[in-house]
Amino acid sequence: MERRDSRSAFERVSVTRVGRAGAGHGEDFAATEEPLEVRLHGRPFAVIMRTPGADRELAAGFLLAESVISSHDDLGAVEHCRHPDHPEGHNVVDVFLLGDAAANLQEHLEQRRNILTSSSCGMCGRVTIDSLRLRAAPLALGSFRISAQMAAELPVTLRKQQSVFDETGGLHAAGLFNSDGQCEAAAEDVGRHNAVDKVIGKMVFEERIPLRDLALVVSGRTSFEIVQKAWLAGVSIICAVSAPSSLAITLAHEAGITLLGFVRDGGFNMYTHPQRIAQR
Amino acid sequence: MERRDSRSAFERVSVTRVGRAGAGHGEDFAATEEPLEVRLHGRPFAVIMRTPGADRELAAGFLLAESVISSHDDLGAVEHCRHPDHPEGHNVVDVFLLGDAAANLQEHLEQRRNILTSSSCGMCGRVTIDSLRLRAAPLALGSFRISAQMAAELPVTLRKQQSVFDETGGLHAAGLFNSDGQCEAAAEDVGRHNAVDKVIGKMVFEERIPLRDLALVVSGRTSFEIVQKAWLAGVSIICAVSAPSSLAITLAHEAGITLLGFVRDGGFNMYTHPQRIAQR
Repeated sequence: MERRDSRSAFERVSVTRVGRAGAGHGEDFAATEEPLEVRLHGRPFAVIMRTPGADRELAAGFLLAESVISSHDDLGAVEHCRHPDHPEGHNVVDVFLLGDAAANLQEHLEQRRNILTSSSCGMCGRVTIDSLRLRAAPLALGSFRISAQMAAELPVTLRKQQSVFDETGGLHAAGLFNSDGQCEAAAEDVGRHNAVDKVIGKMVFEERIPLRDLALVVSGRTSFEIVQKAWLAGVSIICAVSAPSSLAITLAHEAGITLLGFVRDGGFNMYTHPQRIAQR
Repeated sequence: MERRDSRSAFERVSVTRVGRAGAGHGEDFAATEEPLEVRLHGRPFAVIMRTPGADRELAAGFLLAESVISSHDDLGAVEHCRHPDHPEGHNVVDVFLLGDAAANLQEHLEQRRNILTSSSCGMCGRVTIDSLRLRAAPLALGSFRISAQMAAELPVTLRKQQSVFDETGGLHAAGLFNSDGQCEAAAEDVGRHNAVDKVIGKMVFEERIPLRDLALVVSGRTSFEIVQKAWLAGVSIICAVSAPSSLAITLAHEAGITLLGFVRDGGFNMYTHPQRIAQR
Protein backbone atom coordinates (compact mmCIF):
# COMPACT_ATOMS: atom_id res chain seq x y z
CA MET A 1 0.00 0.00 0.00
CA GLU A 2 2.75 2.41 0.88
CA ARG A 3 4.28 2.02 -2.52
CA ARG A 4 0.93 2.60 -4.16
CA ASP A 5 0.03 5.63 -2.11
CA SER A 6 3.39 7.21 -2.72
CA ARG A 7 3.04 7.20 -6.50
CA SER A 8 4.53 10.38 -7.77
CA ALA A 9 2.37 13.44 -8.30
CA PHE A 10 4.60 14.42 -11.20
CA GLU A 11 6.50 12.66 -13.95
CA ARG A 12 9.74 13.45 -15.72
CA VAL A 13 9.18 14.28 -19.38
CA SER A 14 11.54 15.27 -22.16
CA VAL A 15 10.89 18.60 -23.79
CA THR A 16 12.22 20.89 -26.50
CA ARG A 17 12.40 24.45 -25.19
CA VAL A 18 11.99 27.14 -27.82
CA GLY A 19 12.90 30.73 -27.04
CA ARG A 20 13.98 33.83 -28.88
CA ALA A 21 17.54 32.53 -28.89
CA GLY A 22 16.63 29.19 -30.48
CA ALA A 23 15.67 25.67 -29.40
CA GLY A 24 17.24 23.22 -26.98
CA HIS A 25 16.40 19.83 -25.53
CA GLY A 26 15.83 19.32 -21.84
CA GLU A 27 13.76 17.69 -19.16
CA ASP A 28 10.72 18.94 -17.36
CA PHE A 29 8.15 17.68 -14.89
CA ALA A 30 4.48 17.21 -15.77
CA ALA A 31 1.71 16.80 -13.21
CA THR A 32 0.52 13.21 -13.20
CA GLU A 33 -3.05 12.68 -14.37
CA GLU A 34 -4.62 9.22 -14.06
CA PRO A 35 -8.20 7.96 -13.70
CA LEU A 36 -9.39 6.87 -10.27
CA GLU A 37 -12.33 4.51 -10.14
CA VAL A 38 -14.45 4.88 -7.00
CA ARG A 39 -16.46 1.77 -6.17
CA LEU A 40 -19.25 1.28 -3.66
CA HIS A 41 -19.29 -2.27 -2.28
CA GLY A 42 -17.40 -3.43 -5.35
CA ARG A 43 -19.70 -1.76 -7.84
CA PRO A 44 -18.43 1.08 -10.06
CA PHE A 45 -19.76 4.48 -8.96
CA ALA A 46 -17.54 7.09 -10.64
CA VAL A 47 -14.30 7.59 -12.53
CA ILE A 48 -12.37 10.74 -11.67
CA MET A 49 -9.34 12.02 -13.61
CA ARG A 50 -6.97 12.98 -10.82
CA THR A 51 -3.38 13.37 -9.66
CA PRO A 52 -2.42 10.30 -7.58
CA GLY A 53 -2.10 10.92 -3.85
CA ALA A 54 -4.70 11.24 -1.09
CA ASP A 55 -6.94 8.91 -3.10
CA ARG A 56 -8.89 7.77 -0.04
CA GLU A 57 -9.47 11.39 0.96
CA LEU A 58 -10.53 12.22 -2.60
CA ALA A 59 -13.05 9.38 -2.54
CA ALA A 60 -14.44 10.41 0.86
CA GLY A 61 -14.72 14.10 -0.10
CA PHE A 62 -16.32 13.21 -3.41
CA LEU A 63 -18.90 10.97 -1.74
CA LEU A 64 -19.71 13.73 0.75
CA ALA A 65 -20.28 16.19 -2.11
CA GLU A 66 -22.46 13.61 -3.87
CA SER A 67 -24.51 13.21 -0.65
CA VAL A 68 -23.72 9.49 -0.56
CA ILE A 69 -22.27 10.02 2.93
CA SER A 70 -22.92 12.82 5.38
CA SER A 71 -20.14 12.14 7.89
CA HIS A 72 -17.45 9.70 8.95
CA ASP A 73 -20.13 7.54 10.59
CA ASP A 74 -21.32 6.45 7.15
CA LEU A 75 -17.86 5.19 6.11
CA GLY A 76 -16.58 1.67 6.62
CA ALA A 77 -13.40 0.51 4.90
CA VAL A 78 -11.98 2.84 2.23
CA GLU A 79 -9.00 1.22 0.51
CA HIS A 80 -7.22 0.66 -2.74
CA CYS A 81 -8.11 -2.50 -4.64
CA ARG A 82 -5.56 -5.14 -3.68
CA HIS A 83 -6.80 -7.95 -5.87
CA PRO A 84 -3.69 -9.75 -7.20
CA ASP A 85 -5.20 -9.93 -10.70
CA HIS A 86 -5.59 -6.16 -10.84
CA PRO A 87 -2.20 -4.54 -11.44
CA GLU A 88 -3.91 -1.16 -11.71
CA GLY A 89 -5.50 -1.48 -8.27
CA HIS A 90 -3.77 1.74 -7.22
CA ASN A 91 -6.24 3.47 -9.54
CA VAL A 92 -9.25 1.92 -7.82
CA VAL A 93 -10.62 2.80 -4.38
CA ASP A 94 -13.15 0.41 -2.83
CA VAL A 95 -15.55 2.08 -0.42
CA PHE A 96 -17.82 0.29 2.03
CA LEU A 97 -20.70 2.19 3.57
CA LEU A 98 -22.32 1.75 6.98
CA GLY A 99 -25.78 2.28 8.43
CA ASP A 100 -28.25 4.34 6.42
CA ALA A 101 -25.70 5.08 3.74
CA ALA A 102 -25.27 1.34 3.15
CA ALA A 103 -29.03 0.81 3.25
CA ASN A 104 -29.35 3.43 0.51
CA LEU A 105 -26.57 1.92 -1.61
CA GLN A 106 -28.84 0.69 -4.37
CA GLU A 107 -30.56 4.05 -4.49
CA HIS A 108 -27.20 5.87 -4.83
CA LEU A 109 -26.13 3.62 -7.68
CA GLU A 110 -29.49 3.96 -9.42
CA GLN A 111 -29.61 7.70 -8.86
CA ARG A 112 -26.24 8.18 -10.45
CA ARG A 113 -27.23 6.02 -13.38
CA ASN A 114 -30.52 7.86 -13.77
CA ILE A 115 -29.26 11.36 -13.13
CA LEU A 116 -29.56 12.16 -16.81
CA THR A 117 -33.01 10.77 -17.36
CA SER A 118 -34.42 12.49 -14.29
CA SER A 119 -33.40 16.02 -15.23
CA SER A 120 -36.42 17.81 -16.58
CA CYS A 121 -36.84 20.59 -19.09
CA GLY A 122 -36.93 23.83 -17.23
CA MET A 123 -33.73 22.65 -15.55
CA CYS A 124 -31.91 25.82 -14.67
CA GLY A 125 -29.73 27.40 -12.02
CA ARG A 126 -32.76 27.87 -9.80
CA VAL A 127 -33.71 24.20 -10.01
CA THR A 128 -30.11 23.15 -9.35
CA ILE A 129 -30.03 25.32 -6.25
CA ASP A 130 -33.46 24.07 -5.16
CA SER A 131 -32.27 20.49 -5.22
CA LEU A 132 -29.27 21.44 -3.10
CA ARG A 133 -31.54 23.21 -0.66
CA LEU A 134 -33.29 19.91 -0.11
CA ARG A 135 -29.99 18.39 0.96
CA ALA A 136 -28.55 21.15 3.14
CA ALA A 137 -29.85 24.02 5.25
CA PRO A 138 -28.22 27.45 4.88
CA LEU A 139 -25.25 27.79 7.22
CA ALA A 140 -25.84 29.86 10.33
CA LEU A 141 -23.63 32.90 10.83
CA GLY A 142 -21.98 31.18 13.80
CA SER A 143 -18.93 32.47 15.61
CA PHE A 144 -16.13 31.67 13.13
CA ARG A 145 -14.37 34.86 11.99
CA ILE A 146 -11.13 35.72 10.27
CA SER A 147 -9.53 39.14 9.97
CA ALA A 148 -9.32 40.92 6.63
CA GLN A 149 -5.55 40.98 6.95
CA MET A 150 -5.37 37.23 7.49
CA ALA A 151 -7.78 36.52 4.64
CA ALA A 152 -5.54 38.46 2.28
CA GLU A 153 -2.55 36.33 3.27
CA LEU A 154 -4.15 32.86 3.11
CA PRO A 155 -3.39 32.21 -0.60
CA VAL A 156 0.27 33.11 0.02
CA THR A 157 0.39 30.55 2.83
CA LEU A 158 -1.33 27.96 0.61
CA ARG A 159 1.15 28.66 -2.16
CA LYS A 160 3.98 27.77 0.21
CA GLN A 161 2.37 24.34 0.74
CA GLN A 162 2.35 23.69 -2.99
CA SER A 163 5.43 21.63 -3.65
CA VAL A 164 4.37 20.05 -6.93
CA PHE A 165 3.12 23.23 -8.51
CA ASP A 166 6.60 24.65 -8.27
CA GLU A 167 7.85 21.72 -10.30
CA THR A 168 5.18 21.61 -12.97
CA GLY A 169 3.12 24.77 -12.97
CA GLY A 170 0.27 22.38 -13.62
CA LEU A 171 -1.66 21.85 -10.42
CA HIS A 172 -4.54 23.44 -8.61
CA ALA A 173 -4.38 23.70 -4.85
CA ALA A 174 -6.92 23.81 -2.03
CA GLY A 175 -6.38 24.29 1.69
CA LEU A 176 -8.35 24.48 4.92
CA PHE A 177 -7.25 27.14 7.41
CA ASN A 178 -8.29 27.79 11.01
CA SER A 179 -8.93 31.14 12.66
CA ASP A 180 -5.23 31.45 13.56
CA GLY A 181 -4.35 31.27 9.87
CA GLN A 182 -2.82 27.81 10.23
CA CYS A 183 -3.19 25.35 7.39
CA GLU A 184 -4.84 22.14 8.63
CA ALA A 185 -5.08 20.42 5.25
CA ALA A 186 -3.67 21.10 1.78
CA ALA A 187 -3.90 19.19 -1.49
CA GLU A 188 -2.90 19.58 -5.10
CA ASP A 189 -4.47 18.10 -8.18
CA VAL A 190 -4.79 18.57 -11.93
CA GLY A 191 -8.49 19.09 -11.17
CA ARG A 192 -9.45 21.94 -8.89
CA HIS A 193 -12.58 20.12 -7.73
CA ASN A 194 -10.42 17.16 -6.74
CA ALA A 195 -8.13 19.33 -4.62
CA VAL A 196 -11.22 20.53 -2.71
CA ASP A 197 -12.53 16.97 -2.31
CA LYS A 198 -9.13 15.87 -0.98
CA VAL A 199 -8.92 18.44 1.83
CA ILE A 200 -12.55 17.98 2.80
CA GLY A 201 -12.14 14.20 2.62
CA LYS A 202 -9.20 14.43 5.03
CA MET A 203 -11.54 16.12 7.50
CA VAL A 204 -14.16 13.41 6.96
CA PHE A 205 -11.62 10.87 8.23
CA GLU A 206 -10.79 13.16 11.16
CA GLU A 207 -14.52 13.19 12.03
CA ARG A 208 -14.70 16.98 11.78
CA ILE A 209 -17.71 17.42 9.48
CA PRO A 210 -19.35 19.98 9.55
CA LEU A 211 -16.27 22.20 9.21
CA ARG A 212 -17.65 25.18 11.09
CA ASP A 213 -14.26 26.57 12.11
CA LEU A 214 -12.25 26.31 8.89
CA ALA A 215 -11.94 28.50 5.78
CA LEU A 216 -11.51 26.93 2.34
CA VAL A 217 -8.82 28.52 0.16
CA VAL A 218 -8.56 27.69 -3.56
CA SER A 219 -5.82 28.66 -5.98
CA GLY A 220 -8.11 29.42 -8.91
CA ARG A 221 -11.67 30.36 -9.71
CA THR A 222 -14.82 29.54 -7.79
CA SER A 223 -17.50 27.63 -9.67
CA PHE A 224 -20.96 26.54 -8.62
CA GLU A 225 -19.53 23.11 -7.84
CA ILE A 226 -16.89 24.35 -5.41
CA VAL A 227 -19.49 26.31 -3.42
CA GLN A 228 -21.69 23.21 -3.42
CA LYS A 229 -18.88 21.10 -1.98
CA ALA A 230 -18.15 23.71 0.70
CA TRP A 231 -21.83 23.95 1.62
CA LEU A 232 -22.28 20.19 2.08
CA ALA A 233 -19.12 20.12 4.24
CA GLY A 234 -20.35 23.03 6.36
CA VAL A 235 -17.54 25.41 5.31
CA SER A 236 -18.69 29.01 5.85
CA ILE A 237 -15.81 31.00 4.29
CA ILE A 238 -14.31 30.53 0.80
CA CYS A 239 -11.25 32.53 -0.33
CA ALA A 240 -10.31 32.23 -4.01
CA VAL A 241 -7.36 33.73 -5.82
CA SER A 242 -9.45 34.32 -8.94
CA ALA A 243 -13.01 35.22 -9.88
CA PRO A 244 -16.27 33.51 -8.90
CA SER A 245 -18.93 32.65 -11.47
CA SER A 246 -22.37 34.20 -11.28
CA LEU A 247 -23.91 30.95 -10.04
CA ALA A 248 -21.18 30.53 -7.42
CA ILE A 249 -22.18 33.93 -6.01
CA THR A 250 -25.89 33.08 -6.11
CA LEU A 251 -25.31 29.76 -4.36
CA ALA A 252 -22.97 31.25 -1.73
CA HIS A 253 -25.66 33.84 -0.97
CA GLU A 254 -28.30 31.11 -0.55
CA ALA A 255 -25.98 28.85 1.45
CA GLY A 256 -24.99 31.54 3.93
CA ILE A 257 -21.36 31.27 2.82
CA THR A 258 -18.90 34.19 2.87
CA LEU A 259 -17.38 34.24 -0.62
CA LEU A 260 -14.14 36.14 -1.31
CA GLY A 261 -12.55 36.44 -4.74
CA PHE A 262 -9.41 37.98 -6.22
CA VAL A 263 -7.64 37.42 -2.91
CA ARG A 264 -4.24 38.76 -3.96
CA ASP A 265 -1.86 41.69 -3.61
CA GLY A 266 -3.02 42.40 -0.06
CA GLY A 267 -6.71 42.83 -0.91
CA PHE A 268 -9.82 40.99 -2.07
CA ASN A 269 -13.44 41.30 -3.15
CA MET A 270 -16.29 40.19 -0.86
CA TYR A 271 -19.35 38.95 -2.75
CA THR A 272 -21.59 37.53 -0.04
CA HIS A 273 -22.08 37.55 3.74
CA PRO A 274 -19.16 39.83 4.68
CA GLN A 275 -19.94 39.61 8.42
CA ARG A 276 -17.40 36.84 8.98
CA ILE A 277 -14.50 39.04 7.84
CA ALA A 278 -13.37 41.26 10.71
CA GLN A 279 -12.24 44.69 9.54
CA ARG A 280 -10.01 46.68 11.82
CA MET B 1 -34.42 33.19 -30.36
CA GLU B 2 -32.17 36.16 -30.86
CA ARG B 3 -32.95 37.36 -27.39
CA ARG B 4 -32.14 33.95 -25.98
CA ASP B 5 -28.87 33.55 -27.83
CA SER B 6 -27.72 36.97 -26.79
CA ARG B 7 -28.02 36.26 -23.08
CA SER B 8 -25.16 37.96 -21.38
CA ALA B 9 -21.92 36.11 -20.76
CA PHE B 10 -21.46 38.15 -17.62
CA GLU B 11 -23.64 39.58 -14.89
CA ARG B 12 -23.36 42.71 -12.80
CA VAL B 13 -22.78 41.94 -9.12
CA SER B 14 -22.31 44.13 -6.09
CA VAL B 15 -19.07 43.70 -4.24
CA THR B 16 -17.16 45.01 -1.23
CA ARG B 17 -13.57 45.71 -2.18
CA VAL B 18 -11.07 45.36 0.64
CA GLY B 19 -7.55 46.72 0.27
CA ARG B 20 -4.77 47.97 2.48
CA ALA B 21 -6.49 51.36 2.64
CA GLY B 22 -9.82 49.92 3.84
CA ALA B 23 -13.09 48.70 2.36
CA GLY B 24 -15.50 50.20 -0.15
CA HIS B 25 -18.63 49.14 -1.97
CA GLY B 26 -18.75 48.84 -5.70
CA GLU B 27 -19.93 46.85 -8.68
CA ASP B 28 -18.18 44.14 -10.59
CA PHE B 29 -18.95 41.67 -13.36
CA ALA B 30 -19.05 37.92 -12.82
CA ALA B 31 -18.91 35.37 -15.63
CA THR B 32 -22.33 33.81 -16.07
CA GLU B 33 -22.54 30.10 -15.23
CA GLU B 34 -25.75 28.20 -15.99
CA PRO B 35 -26.55 24.57 -16.75
CA LEU B 36 -27.20 23.58 -20.37
CA GLU B 37 -29.19 20.42 -20.95
CA VAL B 38 -28.31 18.65 -24.21
CA ARG B 39 -31.10 16.40 -25.48
CA LEU B 40 -31.05 13.83 -28.25
CA HIS B 41 -34.44 13.51 -29.94
CA GLY B 42 -36.06 14.98 -26.85
CA ARG B 43 -34.32 12.65 -24.41
CA PRO B 44 -31.84 14.00 -21.84
CA PHE B 45 -28.24 13.17 -22.74
CA ALA B 46 -26.06 15.50 -20.65
CA VAL B 47 -26.10 18.60 -18.46
CA ILE B 48 -23.14 20.95 -18.86
CA MET B 49 -22.38 23.89 -16.56
CA ARG B 50 -21.49 26.60 -19.06
CA THR B 51 -21.42 30.29 -19.87
CA PRO B 52 -24.41 31.08 -22.14
CA GLY B 53 -23.54 31.82 -25.75
CA ALA B 54 -22.68 29.54 -28.69
CA ASP B 55 -24.88 26.89 -27.09
CA ARG B 56 -25.54 25.11 -30.39
CA GLU B 57 -21.81 25.03 -31.10
CA LEU B 58 -21.14 23.75 -27.58
CA ALA B 59 -23.66 20.95 -28.10
CA ALA B 60 -22.19 20.00 -31.49
CA GLY B 61 -18.59 20.04 -30.23
CA PHE B 62 -19.56 18.06 -27.15
CA LEU B 63 -21.34 15.41 -29.24
CA LEU B 64 -18.30 15.14 -31.51
CA ALA B 65 -16.03 14.59 -28.49
CA GLU B 66 -18.47 11.97 -27.17
CA SER B 67 -18.36 10.20 -30.56
CA VAL B 68 -22.13 10.58 -30.93
CA ILE B 69 -21.51 12.39 -34.23
CA SER B 70 -18.46 12.30 -36.47
CA SER B 71 -19.26 15.19 -38.79
CA HIS B 72 -21.90 17.70 -39.83
CA ASP B 73 -23.57 14.96 -41.88
CA ASP B 74 -24.80 13.35 -38.67
CA LEU B 75 -26.54 16.52 -37.47
CA GLY B 76 -30.13 17.45 -38.19
CA ALA B 77 -31.79 20.31 -36.34
CA VAL B 78 -29.89 21.72 -33.36
CA GLU B 79 -31.95 24.32 -31.55
CA HIS B 80 -32.99 25.73 -28.23
CA CYS B 81 -36.16 24.34 -26.71
CA ARG B 82 -39.00 26.64 -27.69
CA HIS B 83 -41.81 24.90 -25.89
CA PRO B 84 -44.06 27.66 -24.48
CA ASP B 85 -44.38 25.84 -21.15
CA HIS B 86 -40.62 25.85 -20.67
CA PRO B 87 -39.45 29.32 -19.65
CA GLU B 88 -35.91 27.99 -19.21
CA GLY B 89 -35.76 26.68 -22.78
CA HIS B 90 -32.69 28.85 -23.39
CA ASN B 91 -30.88 26.38 -21.13
CA VAL B 92 -31.93 23.39 -23.23
CA VAL B 93 -30.62 22.46 -26.69
CA ASP B 94 -32.55 19.83 -28.65
CA VAL B 95 -30.41 17.86 -31.09
CA PHE B 96 -31.73 15.65 -33.87
CA LEU B 97 -29.39 13.14 -35.46
CA LEU B 98 -29.36 11.82 -39.02
CA GLY B 99 -28.30 8.57 -40.70
CA ASP B 100 -26.13 6.17 -38.73
CA ALA B 101 -25.90 8.53 -35.77
CA ALA B 102 -29.71 8.48 -35.51
CA ALA B 103 -29.77 4.71 -35.95
CA ASN B 104 -27.37 4.44 -33.02
CA LEU B 105 -29.38 6.82 -30.84
CA GLN B 106 -30.56 4.18 -28.41
CA GLU B 107 -27.02 2.85 -28.11
CA HIS B 108 -25.65 6.34 -27.32
CA LEU B 109 -28.24 6.87 -24.61
CA GLU B 110 -27.64 3.42 -23.13
CA GLN B 111 -23.87 3.79 -23.36
CA ARG B 112 -23.93 7.03 -21.46
CA ARG B 113 -26.22 5.53 -18.84
CA ASN B 114 -24.03 2.45 -18.53
CA ILE B 115 -20.67 4.15 -18.74
CA LEU B 116 -20.14 3.56 -15.04
CA THR B 117 -21.16 -0.07 -14.94
CA SER B 118 -19.02 -0.96 -17.95
CA SER B 119 -15.74 0.35 -16.60
CA SER B 120 -13.72 -2.57 -15.34
CA CYS B 121 -11.12 -2.92 -12.64
CA GLY B 122 -7.74 -2.42 -14.16
CA MET B 123 -9.17 0.75 -15.68
CA CYS B 124 -6.15 2.98 -16.12
CA GLY B 125 -4.64 5.54 -18.44
CA ARG B 126 -3.63 2.83 -20.84
CA VAL B 127 -7.16 1.46 -21.04
CA THR B 128 -8.57 4.95 -21.51
CA ILE B 129 -6.17 5.55 -24.37
CA ASP B 130 -6.91 2.12 -25.84
CA SER B 131 -10.61 2.89 -26.03
CA LEU B 132 -9.83 6.16 -27.80
CA ARG B 133 -7.59 4.33 -30.24
CA LEU B 134 -10.62 2.29 -31.25
CA ARG B 135 -12.45 5.47 -32.17
CA ALA B 136 -9.70 7.41 -33.94
CA ALA B 137 -6.53 6.65 -35.88
CA PRO B 138 -3.37 8.60 -35.06
CA LEU B 139 -3.21 11.79 -37.09
CA ALA B 140 -0.83 11.73 -40.05
CA LEU B 141 1.96 14.30 -40.08
CA GLY B 142 0.31 16.01 -43.06
CA SER B 143 1.38 19.34 -44.47
CA PHE B 144 0.06 21.78 -41.86
CA ARG B 145 2.92 23.77 -40.31
CA ILE B 146 3.25 26.93 -38.24
CA SER B 147 6.42 28.85 -37.50
CA ALA B 148 7.86 28.96 -34.02
CA GLN B 149 7.50 32.72 -34.03
CA MET B 150 3.82 32.54 -34.89
CA ALA B 151 3.18 29.81 -32.32
CA ALA B 152 4.65 32.02 -29.62
CA GLU B 153 2.26 34.83 -30.55
CA LEU B 154 -1.00 32.86 -30.83
CA PRO B 155 -2.03 33.20 -27.15
CA VAL B 156 -1.53 36.97 -27.40
CA THR B 157 -3.84 37.07 -30.39
CA LEU B 158 -6.37 34.89 -28.57
CA ARG B 159 -6.23 37.18 -25.56
CA LYS B 160 -7.24 40.09 -27.77
CA GLN B 161 -10.39 38.17 -28.75
CA GLN B 162 -11.34 37.73 -25.10
CA SER B 163 -13.81 40.46 -24.38
CA VAL B 164 -15.50 38.94 -21.35
CA PHE B 165 -12.31 37.92 -19.61
CA ASP B 166 -11.33 41.55 -19.44
CA GLU B 167 -14.53 42.27 -17.57
CA THR B 168 -14.52 39.39 -15.14
CA GLY B 169 -11.14 37.69 -15.02
CA GLY B 170 -13.24 34.55 -14.82
CA LEU B 171 -13.27 32.88 -18.20
CA HIS B 172 -11.22 30.36 -20.08
CA ALA B 173 -10.68 30.89 -23.79
CA ALA B 174 -10.05 28.66 -26.78
CA GLY B 175 -9.33 29.57 -30.39
CA LEU B 176 -8.65 27.94 -33.74
CA PHE B 177 -5.94 29.54 -35.88
CA ASN B 178 -4.89 28.92 -39.47
CA SER B 179 -1.35 28.80 -40.85
CA ASP B 180 -1.40 32.57 -41.42
CA GLY B 181 -2.00 33.08 -37.70
CA GLN B 182 -5.57 34.26 -38.25
CA CYS B 183 -8.20 33.37 -35.70
CA GLU B 184 -11.07 31.48 -37.36
CA ALA B 185 -13.01 30.76 -34.17
CA ALA B 186 -12.79 31.90 -30.55
CA ALA B 187 -14.92 31.18 -27.50
CA GLU B 188 -14.95 31.88 -23.81
CA ASP B 189 -16.49 29.88 -21.00
CA VAL B 190 -16.29 29.26 -17.26
CA GLY B 191 -15.29 25.73 -18.27
CA ARG B 192 -12.15 25.31 -20.35
CA HIS B 193 -13.49 22.12 -21.92
CA ASN B 194 -16.60 24.02 -22.99
CA ALA B 195 -14.54 26.71 -24.71
CA VAL B 196 -12.84 23.97 -26.76
CA ASP B 197 -16.18 22.32 -27.58
CA LYS B 198 -17.57 25.68 -28.73
CA VAL B 199 -14.82 26.44 -31.26
CA ILE B 200 -14.76 22.87 -32.58
CA GLY B 201 -18.57 22.86 -32.70
CA LYS B 202 -18.50 26.00 -34.83
CA MET B 203 -16.34 24.10 -37.32
CA VAL B 204 -18.77 21.16 -37.24
CA PHE B 205 -21.47 23.51 -38.53
CA GLU B 206 -19.05 24.86 -41.14
CA GLU B 207 -18.53 21.25 -42.31
CA ARG B 208 -14.77 21.44 -41.74
CA ILE B 209 -14.17 18.31 -39.66
CA PRO B 210 -11.43 16.98 -39.63
CA LEU B 211 -9.63 20.24 -38.85
CA ARG B 212 -6.36 19.37 -40.57
CA ASP B 213 -5.29 22.96 -41.14
CA LEU B 214 -6.06 24.65 -37.81
CA ALA B 215 -4.19 24.89 -34.52
CA LEU B 216 -6.06 24.85 -31.21
CA VAL B 217 -4.98 27.48 -28.68
CA VAL B 218 -6.14 27.31 -25.05
CA SER B 219 -5.70 29.92 -22.32
CA GLY B 220 -4.91 27.46 -19.53
CA ARG B 221 -3.63 23.98 -18.95
CA THR B 222 -3.92 20.94 -21.19
CA SER B 223 -5.65 17.91 -19.71
CA PHE B 224 -6.24 14.45 -21.14
CA GLU B 225 -9.73 15.55 -22.10
CA ILE B 226 -8.61 18.53 -24.19
CA VAL B 227 -6.21 16.35 -26.20
CA GLN B 228 -9.02 13.83 -26.66
CA LYS B 229 -11.33 16.53 -28.06
CA ALA B 230 -8.60 17.77 -30.42
CA TRP B 231 -7.87 14.24 -31.63
CA LEU B 232 -11.49 13.42 -32.43
CA ALA B 233 -11.77 16.73 -34.34
CA GLY B 234 -8.55 16.02 -36.27
CA VAL B 235 -6.62 18.98 -34.79
CA SER B 236 -2.88 18.30 -35.09
CA ILE B 237 -1.38 21.22 -33.12
CA ILE B 238 -2.31 22.33 -29.57
CA CYS B 239 -0.77 25.47 -28.03
CA ALA B 240 -1.48 26.04 -24.33
CA VAL B 241 -0.50 28.97 -22.16
CA SER B 242 0.08 26.67 -19.17
CA ALA B 243 1.32 23.16 -18.45
CA PRO B 244 0.09 19.83 -19.83
CA SER B 245 -0.66 16.88 -17.58
CA SER B 246 1.31 13.65 -17.91
CA LEU B 247 -1.62 11.88 -19.57
CA ALA B 248 -2.15 14.79 -21.98
CA ILE B 249 1.45 14.30 -23.16
CA THR B 250 1.03 10.53 -23.44
CA LEU B 251 -2.18 10.89 -25.41
CA ALA B 252 -0.76 13.60 -27.72
CA HIS B 253 2.16 11.30 -28.45
CA GLU B 254 -0.19 8.44 -29.33
CA ALA B 255 -2.52 10.65 -31.34
CA GLY B 256 0.23 12.17 -33.47
CA ILE B 257 -0.57 15.62 -32.08
CA THR B 258 2.03 18.38 -31.68
CA LEU B 259 1.62 19.57 -28.08
CA LEU B 260 3.06 22.92 -26.96
CA GLY B 261 2.88 24.23 -23.40
CA PHE B 262 3.94 27.36 -21.52
CA VAL B 263 3.45 29.36 -24.72
CA ARG B 264 4.29 32.77 -23.27
CA ASP B 265 6.96 35.47 -23.17
CA GLY B 266 8.07 34.72 -26.71
CA GLY B 267 8.86 31.05 -26.13
CA PHE B 268 7.30 27.66 -25.41
CA ASN B 269 7.95 24.01 -24.62
CA MET B 270 7.36 21.29 -27.22
CA TYR B 271 6.34 17.96 -25.70
CA THR B 272 5.41 15.82 -28.72
CA HIS B 273 5.80 15.69 -32.50
CA PRO B 274 7.79 18.92 -32.98
CA GLN B 275 7.98 18.45 -36.77
CA ARG B 276 4.99 20.71 -37.38
CA ILE B 277 6.72 23.72 -35.81
CA ALA B 278 9.01 25.36 -38.36
CA GLN B 279 12.19 26.75 -36.80
CA ARG B 280 14.06 29.37 -38.72
